[in-house]
Amino acid sequence: MTAQQGFFYPRTSTGRAALIPAPPWYYSGDLLTVEYRTDPARVAELLPAPLELADEDPGAVALIWADWQSCSASREELLDPVRAQYKEAFVVVRCSYQGRTYSRCVYIWVDKDFAVARGIHQGYPKKLGSIWQTRPHPFSQAAPQIAAGAKFGATLAAGDRRLAEVVLTLTAESETNGFVNANPMAHHRILPNIARGAAGDAFAELIETGASEVQAGQAWRGEADLRLFEAPTEELARLEVHEIIGGYYRQVGVVWDGGTSLKML
Amino acid sequence: MTAQQGFFYPRTSTGRAALIPAPPWYYSGDLLTVEYRTDPARVAELLPAPLELADEDPGAVALIWADWQSCSASREELLDPVRAQYKEAFVVVRCSYQGRTYSRCVYIWVDKDFAVARGIHQGYPKKLGSIWQTRPHPFSQAAPQIAAGAKFGATLAAGDRRLAEVVLTLTAESETNGFVNANPMAHHRILPNIARGAAGDAFAELIETGASEVQAGQAWRGEADLRLFEAPTEELARLEVHEIIGGYYRQVGVVWDGGTSLKML
Amino acid sequence: MTAQQGFFYPRTSTGRAALIPAPPWYYSGDLLTVEYRTDPARVAELLPAPLELADEDPGAVALIWADWQSCSASREELLDPVRAQYKEAFVVVRCSYQGRTYSRCVYIWVDKDFAVARGIHQGYPKKLGSIWQTRPHPFSQAAPQIAAGAKFGATLAAGDRRLAEVVLTLTAESETNGFVNANPMAHHRILPNIARGAAGDAFAELIETGASEVQAGQAWRGEADLRLFEAPTEELARLEVHEIIGGYYRQVGVVWDGGTSLKML
Amino acid sequence: MTAQQGFFYPRTSTGRAALIPAPPWYYSGDLLTVEYRTDPARVAELLPAPLELADEDPGAVALIWADWQSCSASREELLDPVRAQYKEAFVVVRCSYQGRTYSRCVYIWVDKDFAVARGIHQGYPKKLGSIWQTRPHPFSQAAPQIAAGAKFGATLAAGDRRLAEVVLTLTAESETNGFVNANPMAHHRILPNIARGAAGDAFAELIETGASEVQAGQAWRGEADLRLFEAPTEELARLEVHEIIGGYYRQVGVVWDGGTSLKML
Repeated sequence: MTAQQGFFYPRTSTGRAALIPAPPWYYSGDLLTVEYRTDPARVAELLPAPLELADEDPGAVALIWADWQSCSASREELLDPVRAQYKEAFVVVRCSYQGRTYSRCVYIWVDKDFAVARGIHQGYPKKLGSIWQTRPHPFSQAAPQIAAGAKFGATLAAGDRRLAEVVLTLTAESETNGFVNANPMAHHRILPNIARGAAGDAFAELIETGASEVQAGQAWRGEADLRLFEAPTEELARLEVHEIIGGYYRQVGVVWDGGTSLKML
Repeated sequence: MTAQQGFFYPRTSTGRAALIPAPPWYYSGDLLTVEYRTDPARVAELLPAPLELADEDPGAVALIWADWQSCSASREELLDPVRAQYKEAFVVVRCSYQGRTYSRCVYIWVDKDFAVARGIHQGYPKKLGSIWQTRPHPFSQAAPQIAAGAKFGATLAAGDRRLAEVVLTLTAESETNGFVNANPMAHHRILPNIARGAAGDAFAELIETGASEVQAGQAWRGEADLRLFEAPTEELARLEVHEIIGGYYRQVGVVWDGGTSLKML
Repeated sequence: MTAQQGFFYPRTSTGRAALIPAPPWYYSGDLLTVEYRTDPARVAELLPAPLELADEDPGAVALIWADWQSCSASREELLDPVRAQYKEAFVVVRCSYQGRTYSRCVYIWVDKDFAVARGIHQGYPKKLGSIWQTRPHPFSQAAPQIAAGAKFGATLAAGDRRLAEVVLTLTAESETNGFVNANPMAHHRILPNIARGAAGDAFAELIETGASEVQAGQAWRGEADLRLFEAPTEELARLEVHEIIGGYYRQVGVVWDGGTSLKML
Repeated sequence: MTAQQGFFYPRTSTGRAALIPAPPWYYSGDLLTVEYRTDPARVAELLPAPLELADEDPGAVALIWADWQSCSASREELLDPVRAQYKEAFVVVRCSYQGRTYSRCVYIWVDKDFAVARGIHQGYPKKLGSIWQTRPHPFSQAAPQIAAGAKFGATLAAGDRRLAEVVLTLTAESETNGFVNANPMAHHRILPNIARGAAGDAFAELIETGASEVQAGQAWRGEADLRLFEAPTEELARLEVHEIIGGYYRQVGVVWDGGTSLKML
């Protein structure tokens, strides 16, 4: 039999058909972040043992929209951009594991299959969604620039229902674009048992992951008007908005190149 | 911490947001199958050890289009059909493991995220694609009926490129709708290592899977005109069509309820 | 210069690239209809002069989902079904013109460009939407059959917002599948003036249109649970549901082959 | 009856549901242009009388990709960007009418319904397509900047078939981003006769149109590698590439506010 190549499905003798190449993976994009406080009990519901609520500000939530271009080391995807561009919206909370504070993505929607597959590897709980985010552009006819007074909108839908929308009005430069997504990520990678009716997972691993390289432009903060909507197959709105912490906009370049196994579960 | 519910991502305290519910999973749909022979060496390339080429007709390939409605035991997805309907096209070969002949899906494209997630569980190497298949209908104005002379077309595209298309003209009733997909499936479930640069998988399992219940209507066979197209990120066309074995059409109802772990790899 | 061929854009020397061929156009599909009464004043708002409210039951509205396969006389679209299959949801009211009762489509969403173009020709006010409708299938694992007790769901979304959803439970055979869409259609075909700031239309024509041939299966009636949702760019929910008249399911085959100009406006 | 509002379908008492608002329309976006020469006879085929081939360089063709954000005077679409962002690819040739040289769009594909509707008004022969274009970004991890050596890819597909793709490598600043699309546009606005079997149009108008305001950044030229592909329902590849004139990249802001009727046909 021929040796199999390919980082992920489908594996072949050449690896050419694989949905995603081996890391490192490269990203350039714009992040629109809204941070708010919800009931910490609602965050706790999303933290399986051995994860615990973060010690400080345990009800803090970040809802982040990202408009990405991404590629492998070959950069070939950039010249066939249906393979490079995607959008996502994701929800991050913080948690504590062995005395250390981690960020954790609890919900995420993307609009391309390669992004879903990367999420399976990284422990992001990805679904497909429809994600839109105002783009800055040098000409103002139909675009803001990244500056005081600029307004950016962002929306998320899945299953033909709108789940979230925000309008962010930039007010001033900021030292950060938030703190909730600023820790290493603690994620679960899982595969349920294949046996009929078997409870539990065939594989479950707690990993630590995060960017191996980040470049970031000037962050801006602003006023965020956020709305979450109910849907029968989603629980985003269960993370009710009690108090807005802040809204942020930042352009970034990121490299991801693997993580660390913390614990087999 | 709250106990987590949910068969697959995302897991929550209620399980309501999970992309897929626990099996059993139920399917009603139409299958359009084309079977052909390719160079057995091209099939062998797709069989990782310990799988081997099937003893008889080792170059046989089935390319199958399916137009599905699917649901969980609750049947609730059927009333919100964006969650129930999907289409797929997939390629099946046969292989031998421990003296037994298995079918094996080597490529598959679907058009919904819940179908991708089910595939991750079942070891189907799913990508997103655009899949279309002529539908029969009682009124002939713009539809065939399932009968001699009826013509069905089916197409597959991914990454904005057409990968395959077929026209099937039904000729006669048939005892089967092919033999290549008629064995239990031998699939790999995989998760690559999370560590930077680590070769190999954190989890790799060879499983046996297949329908727990199948009902099928009268199968029909016919003349199939099949074309495969090259694409930079696909290897379907590498399974060159040397000889058409047959084309088939059949309506089926299927239940899937788990499989069996054959070997941890 | 070469003579131009092509029923609609783009016109070329061969006509091959035209988005839609010349009629007749052929359709096979399934119709799910909900009829209800709203405030007649809300219907009147949608009737430009010289159209007037219908004399009887002027507040009657039909909201119809259709799952179509369609083709030209060549039937070639049926073998490349991305060009043949589409779904739509549309709203029909009745009106009176010169003493005759007409049906009139006031809102409609489709999911393919050829359907949009046919609508421009026929005076249907088409937008793109995401439309889903439960399909009947011979096997019950994940499908109803057209019979008492069968449940069909249907949904409509546009702009990433859900606009309408219905669950229809069939109760008994019916002589009709409703009356609101049963008259000839009175539609406006319009093109606004191209001049800057010019009010009014360069072209506005009131036409009468309808199928030139209809075959229909046994109609069924049932209990309909209908919900309409607000959206910033839609006015469907303004046609509030005061009283459900009935729900219907029927399979049909239809030919459309032109209409009649009633009045240049 | 209530007065009807709405620039285009559907018209209502408020105008809120209209697919497109009245002009002016505002655009910010990036243009990737490839200009080449084809057989002038192939251009002539696309020019209905009274249009004639341009006197100079009559076989010149521009194939233009555009990644747009657009809005009305209210700018409200920018805060719900599913209503503002769209992509397009279009083909422009030149022609002569009454001794004046015009540009003319002969093929165009877009990915949103509001863009289709604007095209109906402006005489652009719009179809839906899937259009992708590499985006510049300040961070290089997965993006070029607009500078010498930068590589941009762009692709076009429709009907699940790839129709065109280009790779443009920027070489130097340029005074223009081409000449083929630099004249006023001469477009036909058409509606075929509604009567069964009637040849000809109920309405056909030759108009002149173009931007009422254009702002443009520094244009760049570069090496373009262009490929066109055959498809059964398209004739783009009939405009064979005989010689590349040049490739260009430019960011622009545009306002469109109506045109001029040249001739009722």
